[in-house]
Amino acid sequence: MTKVGIIGATAYSSLELMKILLRHPEAKIVYLGVRREGSPNISSIFPCLGKLLDLACTGLTPADMPEKADLVFSTLPPTISMQFIPPFLDAGVKVVDFSADYRFKDKQLYEKWYGAKHSDVGHLPMAVYGLPEMFRAEIKHAELVANPGCYPTCAALGLLPLVKDTLIDLDDIIVDAKSGVSGAGREPTEATHYPECNESIAAYKVGSHRHQPEIIETVSHAARAKVSLWFTPHLTPMDRGILSTIYANLKQPLAEDAVRAVFSRFYRDEPFVRVRHGDELPKTKDVMNTNFCDLAVKVVGRKVIILSCIDNLVKGASGQAVQNMNIMLGLPETEGLV
Amino acid sequence: MTKVGIIGATAYSSLELMKILLRHPEAKIVYLGVRREGSPNISSIFPCLGKLLDLACTGLTPADMPEKADLVFSTLPPTISMQFIPPFLDAGVKVVDFSADYRFKDKQLYEKWYGAKHSDVGHLPMAVYGLPEMFRAEIKHAELVANPGCYPTCAALGLLPLVKDTLIDLDDIIVDAKSGVSGAGREPTEATHYPECNESIAAYKVGSHRHQPEIIETVSHAARAKVSLWFTPHLTPMDRGILSTIYANLKQPLAEDAVRAVFSRFYRDEPFVRVRHGDELPKTKDVMNTNFCDLAVKVVGRKVIILSCIDNLVKGASGQAVQNMNIMLGLPETEGLV
Amino acid sequence: MTKVGIIGATAYSSLELMKILLRHPEAKIVYLGVRREGSPNISSIFPCLGKLLDLACTGLTPADMPEKADLVFSTLPPTISMQFIPPFLDAGVKVVDFSADYRFKDKQLYEKWYGAKHSDVGHLPMAVYGLPEMFRAEIKHAELVANPGCYPTCAALGLLPLVKDTLIDLDDIIVDAKSGVSGAGREPTEATHYPECNESIAAYKVGSHRHQPEIIETVSHAARAKVSLWFTPHLTPMDRGILSTIYANLKQPLAEDAVRAVFSRFYRDEPFVRVRHGDELPKTKDVMNTNFCDLAVKVVGRKVIILSCIDNLVKGASGQAVQNMNIMLGLPETEGLV
Amino acid sequence: MTKVGIIGATAYSSLELMKILLRHPEAKIVYLGVRREGSPNISSIFPCLGKLLDLACTGLTPADMPEKADLVFSTLPPTISMQFIPPFLDAGVKVVDFSADYRFKDKQLYEKWYGAKHSDVGHLPMAVYGLPEMFRAEIKHAELVANPGCYPTCAALGLLPLVKDTLIDLDDIIVDAKSGVSGAGREPTEATHYPECNESIAAYKVGSHRHQPEIIETVSHAARAKVSLWFTPHLTPMDRGILSTIYANLKQPLAEDAVRAVFSRFYRDEPFVRVRHGDELPKTKDVMNTNFCDLAVKVVGRKVIILSCIDNLVKGASGQAVQNMNIMLGLPETEGLV
Repeated sequence: MTKVGIIGATAYSSLELMKILLRHPEAKIVYLGVRREGSPNISSIFPCLGKLLDLACTGLTPADMPEKADLVFSTLPPTISMQFIPPFLDAGVKVVDFSADYRFKDKQLYEKWYGAKHSDVGHLPMAVYGLPEMFRAEIKHAELVANPGCYPTCAALGLLPLVKDTLIDLDDIIVDAKSGVSGAGREPTEATHYPECNESIAAYKVGSHRHQPEIIETVSHAARAKVSLWFTPHLTPMDRGILSTIYANLKQPLAEDAVRAVFSRFYRDEPFVRVRHGDELPKTKDVMNTNFCDLAVKVVGRKVIILSCIDNLVKGASGQAVQNMNIMLGLPETEGLV
Repeated sequence: MTKVGIIGATAYSSLELMKILLRHPEAKIVYLGVRREGSPNISSIFPCLGKLLDLACTGLTPADMPEKADLVFSTLPPTISMQFIPPFLDAGVKVVDFSADYRFKDKQLYEKWYGAKHSDVGHLPMAVYGLPEMFRAEIKHAELVANPGCYPTCAALGLLPLVKDTLIDLDDIIVDAKSGVSGAGREPTEATHYPECNESIAAYKVGSHRHQPEIIETVSHAARAKVSLWFTPHLTPMDRGILSTIYANLKQPLAEDAVRAVFSRFYRDEPFVRVRHGDELPKTKDVMNTNFCDLAVKVVGRKVIILSCIDNLVKGASGQAVQNMNIMLGLPETEGLV
Repeated sequence: MTKVGIIGATAYSSLELMKILLRHPEAKIVYLGVRREGSPNISSIFPCLGKLLDLACTGLTPADMPEKADLVFSTLPPTISMQFIPPFLDAGVKVVDFSADYRFKDKQLYEKWYGAKHSDVGHLPMAVYGLPEMFRAEIKHAELVANPGCYPTCAALGLLPLVKDTLIDLDDIIVDAKSGVSGAGREPTEATHYPECNESIAAYKVGSHRHQPEIIETVSHAARAKVSLWFTPHLTPMDRGILSTIYANLKQPLAEDAVRAVFSRFYRDEPFVRVRHGDELPKTKDVMNTNFCDLAVKVVGRKVIILSCIDNLVKGASGQAVQNMNIMLGLPETEGLV
Repeated sequence: MTKVGIIGATAYSSLELMKILLRHPEAKIVYLGVRREGSPNISSIFPCLGKLLDLACTGLTPADMPEKADLVFSTLPPTISMQFIPPFLDAGVKVVDFSADYRFKDKQLYEKWYGAKHSDVGHLPMAVYGLPEMFRAEIKHAELVANPGCYPTCAALGLLPLVKDTLIDLDDIIVDAKSGVSGAGREPTEATHYPECNESIAAYKVGSHRHQPEIIETVSHAARAKVSLWFTPHLTPMDRGILSTIYANLKQPLAEDAVRAVFSRFYRDEPFVRVRHGDELPKTKDVMNTNFCDLAVKVVGRKVIILSCIDNLVKGASGQAVQNMNIMLGLPETEGLV
């Protein structure tokens, strides 16, 4: 039985993570670290964990672990997470980090978008970007995995098969993404106040969302060339789910079936990517509460349009983190996730 | 043309009020008082008022009025409203107050439930409770109208015909009320954070909501006897609307049609109350964005069950306030409201 | 490994059932029977089952089973289910029936409310009502379990501790229940058309819902006396969840804590019932996607008010069905459910 | 007072239209034609019209008008509408048609996309496309106005200022549109069944929606050149509203402020178009229940991104129809609409 811990246990992604881990036959939650005072039982913070998880929260250092975890997940926010992770790594605990702190190899790019000095440059080189469909081999041996952002996961999975063999122009990619409100976190704000965001859809941070450079990094890496990409996120009146509608120009004319076949081949052995047949189009509800990414392909004239759906809290966060844990620990990759 | 002002112009009920007043052929908004610094244009606070209302907000005293209003609405919160209303009354401006500050004739009852000394006892006797279906004659001559709460409006309209001739036991009335989230105001809280309240229903403040004594006062007044009543509010995942499901015991056996006929007679001349025929049951959407209260009657054994629906922001707040204004100023009662 | 089948596999409750069974370590779905023509793969009916369940649907008789199931769930509608269940029982297959066909010992009561002759009276005596908190011992040895309705489960769990020792008047119980829309099934109707039921709440079938006699039967059985109970269901704009707000009169004055202690003792050993502490009130989201029933107790004057929450598709249908299966087959009761 | 009628009075757009007309100081509804049997009172079809409109529905011919209307709105579906409109035109009644039947000057284009022979080619030449921001002068003298589709209205208003002076490449325009569910009409279907579309977003009819050729026609007309445009509609879990996110390439580098100034100038005198300042982004709720189109402009690298919001039932249908009526009859254009 693998012993796991979570630092930042009050986040939505932590709740989702605990729910997944509670069903995981090989994992046991032994440690929950929070920034709050006192040692509240986690079920007083999340009443829905009553009779499921009876564990008192403690602090954020290795010394706070009631028993030593084999792996710790950090759901702390960016710029905070890198302050608490190093001691765990030093103590020989593997780490999966939900924040952006270890996602960028280029520390200046990180510092530009996250507005803070990187305080743990030392561990950057060993960090592996935790998108199994791209870096499975590296994740297998990683001590520190940077779990991808929700939008980047959804966008990258929709683009990888197209850029790998450069079927599309790399300088004109549009990702129009629609996300449920849980993506905005657990802090009440005007934007997430029910009467403000219910029954309404809006774009936000057009061209300036922090996930844009992450998408560009990931897709450029796969393309082995710098891509130009426009990313527009939208807040959609639903709890969870992301749909990315991706537009690109085909380099050469290709029939829709041919493009679909490229996707099917590319993802044939992937346990968590499903390519839809023919005219079927996915909806976010198809992947709700699952670790799947559902993809569909349309060709209209010279453009290919990709529909990519994930649950932002599962494949876009906690499910993928557990998938990474499984790979890091040599467990079956789908354990606890289907 | 009647000149009107609003103090507390940033509340949801103010936005709704402005929308109604903008369509009112006899009213012109000349003054908006707020507690903020500076003099923001109202359309910078509510972008949906762009090209509709071009007016700078000012302060909360009569001297802040760009031109003298005939009537001022206060949408300030309870315990605050009574601090700002007296100078307007003294200046000869009629007032419709949305808060609870002038709803209770018994100042001790008010002070018990609102946790504050009443600071304007002098104006209490002249205040009229603004439920036109009960106090139309008094409203006609009022200088100060206490606009009823949303839950009390919905509950009282469902109970008046039954208690007036004492068709039901007065000591066993249950009001199970379901409200949309806008009833909780414009301040973001955990309870109104979208991922918390969406896709979920819950009771709150069982037996301890401030609208309970108001409902009891109003219904007891109509019954000419003190009633015993249990009130349970619920937060429902929708923007607006209240449905009250009311249970009471018939004093004498009465057929459903006979009870329905009592309601139809009672409300025959009311412009804003609709009694449903036969087996029809109302839903809150039927009254959305309207000043109507829709009612249905069911008799099951010895119990009568009343369904009462309003839009909490219209008949439960701003629409009823305009209805009161119309009555106070001798305008047609439905002006601007249908 | 237990082999299970489902007849009526296209219902919402079947989808939920399959999702639960797919995570169940001791169960394997070997058979899906449907009323459609052809042998569609289940993942073409429910795309969200892609890469999870690769099984062709067949017909509704024991001969249609690709391999013999140990237990079959029927999610066929009432009056249809009893036509297809007998052959499975005769073939030695245990059955958990989701319909009302075997819930009533009194066949006349069934026939009155379901408007059809009972066509399988022979198996009625052996059927056990599948509420484990009441009939666990009997379920253990049952060949045929009548899985309770969603509203009855929610109401009964809120009332059992009160009626067992007759702490309340048995002739004046009110159950005001609010349900998500999935409770209405998978057939599109005007009532479940999105623009009709979204952003709206309404009561329906007041005093005439088929679950009313079922609730009365169950509660009366626990009370060992016929109870009088008023049941009002409401359609609430959310996918899933039921909240029952239950009102009853205490026979003797009892402090809130004392009543709460009665509940805590009663459910101490129950794996799927959680009694909230102090002033905590449950919301349906706390039990979403779980087999839990969350309960809270309030005493206001002479009345006790019980809040009872379940997920209508889990504890109100498929989760409870699996709980029953576990008990019938001697598996750990919570297997696959936490 | 202008007398108006509606043929097809049971559609959602008719309900919205009646609500607007009931507040219109210069219009009186004298006639409602439906395809149903009998002469149901409209308030029995739409209970929310109780005490507002007491009118019996009749048939669909000029002879069915209780008194002669000056103008008739047709909300009949495409291919049906053109069967019933000609007699009204022949009787000297002006017509505003909500269907697509008179929107295309090119009858072959119509027949290709709507799959039916055009049965009223005679009236095609006199039909004016009812987008006042483009064709106000022609609408003034029109006997027959083809009210635009909801998506085309939203897209065209976002593109007109850019294509008029050819600020963008005309061969690479993307319109990614998100619509509320009321856009799908009043007929219950699987796609609009609450548990299917709630809490989910999905694209549909990618590259094959009937509004695509209409958008292309309108924008090409404004551009005086054929444009290439990709249109992807999405079903969003909300009642009403459309947000179009529009992507195009600037022909010459232009600062964001400069592009915004182009929009502000273009729409300076338009009563129903609002261009947002600076970084403000519109949400569909800002225009809910209004006839406004809210626009925002972003420039990111060589691309301009336009956000365009309308209420599909108002500016996208009934509000624009009344705006057209006002223009056709020489009434103030905003009458009844603000």
